[in-house]
Amino acid sequence: MLLFAEHRYYGKSLPFGNDSYSNASTLGYLTAEQAMADFATLLTHLRRTTNGTEKSPVIAFGGSYGGMLAAWMRVKYPHIIQGAIAASAPVLQFKGVTPCSKFGRVVTKDYETQSPACANVIRKSWQAIENVTATDKGLEWLSNAWQLCKPLKSSDDKKRLKDWLSDVWTNLAMVDYPYPASFLAPLPANPVKEVCKKLKDDSLDGEELLRHLFRGLSVYTNYTQKTKCVDIRQAAEDTLGEKGWDFQACTEMVMPMCNDGKRDFFEPMKWNFSSYTEDCHKKFGVKPRLHWAEIEFGGKKLEASSNIVFSNGLLDPWSSGGVMSSISAKLPAVIIPEGAHHLDLRASDPADPPSVIKARKLEKYYIRTWIKMMKH
Amino acid sequence: MLLFAEHRYYGKSLPFGNDSYSNASTLGYLTAEQAMADFATLLTHLRRTTNGTEKSPVIAFGGSYGGMLAAWMRVKYPHIIQGAIAASAPVLQFKGVTPCSKFGRVVTKDYETQSPACANVIRKSWQAIENVTATDKGLEWLSNAWQLCKPLKSSDDKKRLKDWLSDVWTNLAMVDYPYPASFLAPLPANPVKEVCKKLKDDSLDGEELLRHLFRGLSVYTNYTQKTKCVDIRQAAEDTLGEKGWDFQACTEMVMPMCNDGKRDFFEPMKWNFSSYTEDCHKKFGVKPRLHWAEIEFGGKKLEASSNIVFSNGLLDPWSSGGVMSSISAKLPAVIIPEGAHHLDLRASDPADPPSVIKARKLEKYYIRTWIKMMKH
Repeated sequence: MLLFAEHRYYGKSLPFGNDSYSNASTLGYLTAEQAMADFATLLTHLRRTTNGTEKSPVIAFGGSYGGMLAAWMRVKYPHIIQGAIAASAPVLQFKGVTPCSKFGRVVTKDYETQSPACANVIRKSWQAIENVTATDKGLEWLSNAWQLCKPLKSSDDKKRLKDWLSDVWTNLAMVDYPYPASFLAPLPANPVKEVCKKLKDDSLDGEELLRHLFRGLSVYTNYTQKTKCVDIRQAAEDTLGEKGWDFQACTEMVMPMCNDGKRDFFEPMKWNFSSYTEDCHKKFGVKPRLHWAEIEFGGKKLEASSNIVFSNGLLDPWSSGGVMSSISAKLPAVIIPEGAHHLDLRASDPADPPSVIKARKLEKYYIRTWIKMMKH
Repeated sequence: MLLFAEHRYYGKSLPFGNDSYSNASTLGYLTAEQAMADFATLLTHLRRTTNGTEKSPVIAFGGSYGGMLAAWMRVKYPHIIQGAIAASAPVLQFKGVTPCSKFGRVVTKDYETQSPACANVIRKSWQAIENVTATDKGLEWLSNAWQLCKPLKSSDDKKRLKDWLSDVWTNLAMVDYPYPASFLAPLPANPVKEVCKKLKDDSLDGEELLRHLFRGLSVYTNYTQKTKCVDIRQAAEDTLGEKGWDFQACTEMVMPMCNDGKRDFFEPMKWNFSSYTEDCHKKFGVKPRLHWAEIEFGGKKLEASSNIVFSNGLLDPWSSGGVMSSISAKLPAVIIPEGAHHLDLRASDPADPPSVIKARKLEKYYIRTWIKMMKH
């Protein structure tokens, strides 16, 4: 059986219907622990009620947060699942486990590998935006040049634009697949390469640089050639339940991020837990628990567990928080040098690099081993 | 360091002060999962703030429910504790894992081992109580004969008396230690033997049998010779937080019990989950989750775990739900033939049987092994 259990508070699984996101009190049941307990209960129920499943082994798999849940299900419910494929699961992306600067550096490296000039254009763009938009005329110019749906008016808008831009570069790195795909946005094969083909001249400045940047940006915003205007309110299509994740990030899943603008191409930004906490309190009326996920799920101390494959692609920014070397023979790490975010879990494609084909074979081998172990 | 962390809702650890037990809403935070999360948080905090503990191994230990928590802490938080001594931990005392009849049979066997007549006197007593108390005069007679603090008036009182009596025989089996002790009540050494010395004549009936029974009962109710009257409102001194456990038994910790009066000496009683549920709903406004503890904590499927010693005494009724044979080399069972409820965790005593001395040695050996493993 192939079973997809929708995570509570996402998709249609709303415990309080339309009120599920109303306040901290209705949202309070949105935790990874509760979701995992759902899965444990569901699996037990299915095993009890479905003929022929009584002794069936169960392998959890998932990518990204789903990969974290897959891994942690095996950590917390080894009596219910026999093993897990945790693809691009940033189980180490927590305070005190992984430096906050690592994520941005992986993003940057993806672009630098295409061409140092490409990364430099992006690095220079933050100051260029500041300079150009210092006047109302500049704001208007940029709104037009970048074909924004809603013209920039205030410095809040400017901030939003830069956040959106960061997300776009990050998303492109995450979904840098070797074939056209539409995971976060409709994109060509090797989108980072396509972007960098357009961002060749890092000698430019000001409006010229921003016009240049827009050509690269369009790989993301207008691959379909059908985009009428650019909407900066969200960088990805709203299929991932961003609001749910926002709440989880404001409670258990605190993943510190920071940039220095030197070893990465982002606008320099320190990790500030106080302001992070303030934001969360404003948004949801809750305060995040900085160390909780590590306490509950173990951080990197997973030695006592078994039967988890941690796979990560080196193109994937989230590999910064991934298990990048085997913890034990029973907790192997699988590295996919040419892989972006959980490429191994995507459907096979003729353009797949050999490393992902090898990874999938390895994963199958481990699953077979776990199943055999169960039968003995 | 020897660390005792008080379980939430017990002793002074009341999250809502005097209102903690007010209703289902304030009681809702009383779960084993939350208590274990408390321990995980506390240990992490201590490790971070106490010099020299950064790399210290942690061994959990406990008896009875505390033993369950110790074992499950290692199952759920193997990154925080390195091993556990789970003494007399009825981790299998759940629906579908252990037959409900087992517990009462162990109690009975303790008395039968002393003398079959002793067990028979108790077995016959339920009917004798029914017969004698069929009239108001009989109720009065029994109230006087047994020196009850509050005379029996109704059939409710009669039910309460029988429940109390069951508890007394059970408690005596639990605390059948080889030296005087005061765990549930002040008692002589080998109290079951002492009781059975008084219960020799199973040819009696009616009032005579009940008068005879009272002499045995007095070992429990009046070992101190200071008891003015017998209070049947509670069988054990109120140091165990019975009300808290009542709530836990009405939510997660559903441990089915039943008797047939043949292979045990109790009044026949079927396990009835509907009436159990009704009672819980009346008492606390909650309904128990029959299979939850097994789903959450694994029942007998503990193979994936490690470094837990399950110790059980054969005199202890709770051994009915204990791990009585090793699950693996890393999950050894230690049996103490002459042991009552977690005798191994009690202070050493000259009267200790060789089997408990051996058990304690084994436990120390395992702890040393786990600590060594951690250092490598």
